[in-house]
Amino acid sequence: MPDTLFDVVIIGGGPGGYVAAIRAAQLGMKPALVERDKLGGVCLNWGCIPSKSLLKNAQIFNTFKHAGDFGITFDNLGFDFAKVMKRSRTVSNRIVKGVEFLMKKNKITLFEGSAAFEQKGAVTVSVKGKKPSTVGGKKFLLATGASPRKLPGLEIDGDNMIDSSGALGLKKLPPTMVIVGGGAIGVEFAYFWNAFGCKVTILEMMPHLLPVEDEEIATILQKSLIKSGIKVVTGARVLGTEISSDNVIVSYDRGKGTETAVGDKCLVAVGVTGNTAGLGLERIGVDVEKGFIKTGEHYQTSNPDVHAIGDVIGPPLLAHVASHEAIYAIEGIHDPDHPGRIDYDSIPGCTYCQPQVASIGLTEKAARERGHELKIGRYPFRALGKAIAAGETEGMVKLIFDARYGELLGAHIVGSEATEQIAELGMAKALEATYKEILGTVHAHPTLAEAVMEAAGDAYGEAIHL
Amino acid sequence: MPDTLFDVVIIGGGPGGYVAAIRAAQLGMKPALVERDKLGGVCLNWGCIPSKSLLKNAQIFNTFKHAGDFGITFDNLGFDFAKVMKRSRTVSNRIVKGVEFLMKKNKITLFEGSAAFEQKGAVTVSVKGKKPSTVGGKKFLLATGASPRKLPGLEIDGDNMIDSSGALGLKKLPPTMVIVGGGAIGVEFAYFWNAFGCKVTILEMMPHLLPVEDEEIATILQKSLIKSGIKVVTGARVLGTEISSDNVIVSYDRGKGTETAVGDKCLVAVGVTGNTAGLGLERIGVDVEKGFIKTGEHYQTSNPDVHAIGDVIGPPLLAHVASHEAIYAIEGIHDPDHPGRIDYDSIPGCTYCQPQVASIGLTEKAARERGHELKIGRYPFRALGKAIAAGETEGMVKLIFDARYGELLGAHIVGSEATEQIAELGMAKALEATYKEILGTVHAHPTLAEAVMEAAGDAYGEAIHL
Repeated sequence: MPDTLFDVVIIGGGPGGYVAAIRAAQLGMKPALVERDKLGGVCLNWGCIPSKSLLKNAQIFNTFKHAGDFGITFDNLGFDFAKVMKRSRTVSNRIVKGVEFLMKKNKITLFEGSAAFEQKGAVTVSVKGKKPSTVGGKKFLLATGASPRKLPGLEIDGDNMIDSSGALGLKKLPPTMVIVGGGAIGVEFAYFWNAFGCKVTILEMMPHLLPVEDEEIATILQKSLIKSGIKVVTGARVLGTEISSDNVIVSYDRGKGTETAVGDKCLVAVGVTGNTAGLGLERIGVDVEKGFIKTGEHYQTSNPDVHAIGDVIGPPLLAHVASHEAIYAIEGIHDPDHPGRIDYDSIPGCTYCQPQVASIGLTEKAARERGHELKIGRYPFRALGKAIAAGETEGMVKLIFDARYGELLGAHIVGSEATEQIAELGMAKALEATYKEILGTVHAHPTLAEAVMEAAGDAYGEAIHL
Repeated sequence: MPDTLFDVVIIGGGPGGYVAAIRAAQLGMKPALVERDKLGGVCLNWGCIPSKSLLKNAQIFNTFKHAGDFGITFDNLGFDFAKVMKRSRTVSNRIVKGVEFLMKKNKITLFEGSAAFEQKGAVTVSVKGKKPSTVGGKKFLLATGASPRKLPGLEIDGDNMIDSSGALGLKKLPPTMVIVGGGAIGVEFAYFWNAFGCKVTILEMMPHLLPVEDEEIATILQKSLIKSGIKVVTGARVLGTEISSDNVIVSYDRGKGTETAVGDKCLVAVGVTGNTAGLGLERIGVDVEKGFIKTGEHYQTSNPDVHAIGDVIGPPLLAHVASHEAIYAIEGIHDPDHPGRIDYDSIPGCTYCQPQVASIGLTEKAARERGHELKIGRYPFRALGKAIAAGETEGMVKLIFDARYGELLGAHIVGSEATEQIAELGMAKALEATYKEILGTVHAHPTLAEAVMEAAGDAYGEAIHL
């Protein structure tokens, strides 16, 4: 017999799980939340939040480097790397405390420990050195997240070979770094370290950095990073690493025989796999496929009493996807008539280096592959008043419309505030806006957002400032 | 007989007139553009663009003041005011050159000089010392803009008493300034000068700064400006000025008898009046009322062959309003079935100090006055991950919905990127989004835009992070 019985027992306290718990409480359900480490999960503790904190420091430091253009003078520019890193921990801790407050405010019962299914209708929550509790639930929601993928030859030792958590815990700035993987995480750390003077080499297997982004946009970013001093090697299959006392030698092949990149340390950022081990999923008939849990129309697993959301169910592996899936899953448990799944064609994705990259919907290539006839509009920030006034003229907005009805299929931005600008296009996409509606929406002058309006115009030969 | 005949003769080359000329050319019409000074008008030369350039310098300087929080070290922070000012002129000139390029690219015939109606179907364009040209048109579009209002006792002398153009031309930073008028222009200059160490006093007649903005939002800004060292006096009726050799003494009354504010100079920023003088409007039967030209459903004046748009037709006095009115007016001349006027309930307004203020639609007060039953949602940036990570936690998003259908009536933001964030709400308002649609739109994490989603949730008790 379980010690207690809840309407829903949520396993994992990241941006999927804790949001699910709050939404359940709002709907009058009695939720329990099980977390084995810290509330907030990877996102708040070792991902999105601390990394964005570091990137802000880097952005400010880079602004200093050309502050003379703005008539600002100073001497002896320098930095205190320990303080830079410490700020990111302070930021994380403050936000984690905020989540703890929300749990109390919403009267959510928290179980600290590792959960495992050992009997029907309950999980056992174990904390080392304590008596386990048995937590009963009418329904269960798995939100256990994901962990960096382990690749042979790229084993993490936490010293020379680090993953993103290790990178967020560095006490000193390494003089040189090799980054394996040119996705968002790799690119963000490259920008951060390079800003403070570290020599960075990125090795990416695909033909361009940020392989999931539109090629034209990713290429603009890639050129910018190269110009800033980062070495970028694409089409590079990593063969293995050799660790000496001083450094790491990473060997790779890009069709020219074996080459090597050398760094004081090597960051491995090559994707993740779902956290499914140790949960006893096999005992309750929850199927796992290629490292992720399979889910159906309402995020139910192969066991109808067990739902799953977030990174553990596979891509897109993003905190905001987990949070929205959480709300949908809980609303679906609460009300079987609830529309099942979020719209996976309207998910924004962001990379927070400078210039930033953000996108929603289909890339040009994907839109062509789906057979759409396209109208594509582009607007470069170098032509835009606000961008010139702010001295931030890198990048462009690229909008992809279906030629027939002018429906927005995809939006891609590289530029200084791309990650904020994408919100307008998220709204446009969610409301199925056409080019005409985007073009006709009065955009404030002077703003970067005017580039969105001009790009919509450009797709149909109606851009004013081009 | 006119020397030449155009489909449309546009008078005034600001963001109304030059946009009208481009749109006319796109539609296959033959437009002429008459400009007496510089292309780009006040906006590009003495308004939006140079002021935003200065505000960027100020923002960077203010960021540097607390850059130690970000682990950045330096000595002897200072500035070169002449260089700060010079950058704003360089920015303006670059953008004006861009407009000149657009005129050539769109094959628009440009007449440099002052226009006046002296006969039917034509304007006379005069340049001092040259033979006037007579420019014939099938239609005319007046886009002559507006100029600062002249108030008795506050006469501009260009030395002690300046308007915004004078402020943009200052060679040295005055140690102290009095600003009469706490609207967007007054507040922006106050922020700019204060950032670089000038002691600023703002005198505003209404009960709070930014009188057109939502009171709750404006009050947050006001407190922030006061905290930064600006002296703000509201409810102050200015009585007059006295100019001594050293400074300006402005006397005012806020119900406590006559008080005075003293500054090295006084900026007068108390509104504008339409540029209607000298055009010979009386000769062609174009009616002017309270300083602005009256227009009808398709921006036609009381003379059906003469249309008017932009600041010269009255509030909202914004460059982006002029540009959109220009497009509507030209499309209306081209196609009489064109829907007449832009939607004046969906006009964003921006103030570019830090924190920025931006809004669209109704204030809370105006919404109540219109008889709506309201649902109001708020979300403070201090609770938001991205804002904490960036160290920019001032301000909030406030959304106003009609309680019955959840339709968005107004959106008000005070915060670090408010002027960009408002774009999402412009799209939402143009597409008549409901609270549910805003809440259901997946917003990227971590972004400031999440505050919009949370505020929508708050209005209906569904905010997650509150």
